[in-house]
Amino acid sequence: MLLLHLSDVDEARWAEAFTQSLAPYKVVRQGEDFDPADVDYIFVWKPRPEAFEGLSNLKAVLSLGAGVDALLKHPRLPDVPVVRFIDKDLSQRMSDYVVAHVTMHHRQFTRFQADQKARRWSQFYPPAANETTVGIMGLGVLGQDAITRLRPLGFDLRGWSRTPKVIDGVAGFAGAAQFDAFLSGTDILVNLLPLTPETQGILNAETFAKLRRGGLASGPVIVNAARGGHQREADIAAALADGTLGAASLDVFEVEPLPADSPLWGLENCFITPHIAAISNEKTGVHYFTRIIQDHLAGRELINVVDRARGY
Amino acid sequence: MLLLHLSDVDEARWAEAFTQSLAPYKVVRQGEDFDPADVDYIFVWKPRPEAFEGLSNLKAVLSLGAGVDALLKHPRLPDVPVVRFIDKDLSQRMSDYVVAHVTMHHRQFTRFQADQKARRWSQFYPPAANETTVGIMGLGVLGQDAITRLRPLGFDLRGWSRTPKVIDGVAGFAGAAQFDAFLSGTDILVNLLPLTPETQGILNAETFAKLRRGGLASGPVIVNAARGGHQREADIAAALADGTLGAASLDVFEVEPLPADSPLWGLENCFITPHIAAISNEKTGVHYFTRIIQDHLAGRELINVVDRARGY
Repeated sequence: MLLLHLSDVDEARWAEAFTQSLAPYKVVRQGEDFDPADVDYIFVWKPRPEAFEGLSNLKAVLSLGAGVDALLKHPRLPDVPVVRFIDKDLSQRMSDYVVAHVTMHHRQFTRFQADQKARRWSQFYPPAANETTVGIMGLGVLGQDAITRLRPLGFDLRGWSRTPKVIDGVAGFAGAAQFDAFLSGTDILVNLLPLTPETQGILNAETFAKLRRGGLASGPVIVNAARGGHQREADIAAALADGTLGAASLDVFEVEPLPADSPLWGLENCFITPHIAAISNEKTGVHYFTRIIQDHLAGRELINVVDRARGY
Repeated sequence: MLLLHLSDVDEARWAEAFTQSLAPYKVVRQGEDFDPADVDYIFVWKPRPEAFEGLSNLKAVLSLGAGVDALLKHPRLPDVPVVRFIDKDLSQRMSDYVVAHVTMHHRQFTRFQADQKARRWSQFYPPAANETTVGIMGLGVLGQDAITRLRPLGFDLRGWSRTPKVIDGVAGFAGAAQFDAFLSGTDILVNLLPLTPETQGILNAETFAKLRRGGLASGPVIVNAARGGHQREADIAAALADGTLGAASLDVFEVEPLPADSPLWGLENCFITPHIAAISNEKTGVHYFTRIIQDHLAGRELINVVDRARGY
């Protein structure tokens, strides 16, 4: 039996998906009527203090989050393997989005779309990828995956992170002290940062003004695939209107769904997608944990088990 | 002596660069005062009918274009080797175009642009790159370069060529006999073929109807970065209108500039660029042909000589 114990997310949807995916294997939710001794696996997100009570035959704790720092601090976490969510598929999809938008802007779509609208044949040669610098903010799993995709395309790459990171073929910048230097050589700025008090609102007018001018004919470009809280939308709209930014691709917004009266909708150099860059819902998670449970029930070893001493 | 005979491009700039690069070897331009019998090599782009007159000691024709379809039709082309331009920089730029348009269509831009226009927040998750098949027609220098860029993005790749080619990570199809099988598994069709009597008009209604349906929500997509002669524009317009094709990116046209009354301009799922996917770069071109001329003068064989029977 699989027990779902999820807070702050739509547990019912996950339960429905797991029930279908694991059938005829039984799936239950917290608060339902079942014998805790029948629970083989518990799938958790922000488990409450009593989450693990009575689970005397538990084989593993499955964590919805890739980060398990909070889970490992749970005072009554049982001494069974903890499996974390490492989602290659999510990284792939996020990189799909990033590459599509970076290359679109590099090839100056906004210009060619305006020409097409005017039925105007106006030849213009975009720079080669190796003449264009893409700056990635955030060098975790997602940032590094994006880099492995962008590097073979030939782009000149630079990265910015909280602490210094050495990545092959990427000029590294770290911390507040090197932020301006990072921006000053960046034509296309890609945000894949976690949202923290330090990164809140980082995509603002001051940041945009520091990006390199002259690399792309349109002016510099931003691509935000992380969190709406990273961006100041009033600043983005102003920068897109006055040419400080040549274009923007935004998948996330301060308020979602983006209100119908947002000026961003009407800007032809703003490319809006409705928070679909990467699928972070139950589809990939259910697929991942269904395989882990079925493999384990079939006698194979658990994968992606957390090293508790190391902490991840 | 090298004779330059270039139309529609800045011949003076090329002449200056070649003069420096080949010195003390003599470089002349069309219309200048020289003895045609002294010309060893002629460097051409869109040569006029009289271009080759009097060149009684010509050793080779050097083509600025990578595609030599038009040159080979010149009624007075001398019976000497024709050397075509194979240019890493050109390949990089062509791949830049191909990757930008493939990824744009894979991410279903047409749909999201329509939603944006309607200020509609409508979540839809494009398939992952590894769930999408890109079929490359033409596995020469350009096709193979595009493959090295698309492969790290995760796309499922297949290639079609006149003769069988084995390329790592690419399902290979060859000749007329395997064309339908190639098409039947292709979501995004990229044309990088040379223009020959066999490939003339290959992007037609019959071809479009054989592409895979169900891979991309929009329907299958074509990207033509090769020659306008490969495509039947009436068929493309019809297929884009009736849903046989979900979208198209066209950089080349049957008549260029594309006439203002072409229906293609007004189709929102047709992405038009004015034959700017890649340009033969003066810097790399001068370097390339200087080496070819100097090697040949030193007694070594010409490279990248066109096979006239094959047509490229």
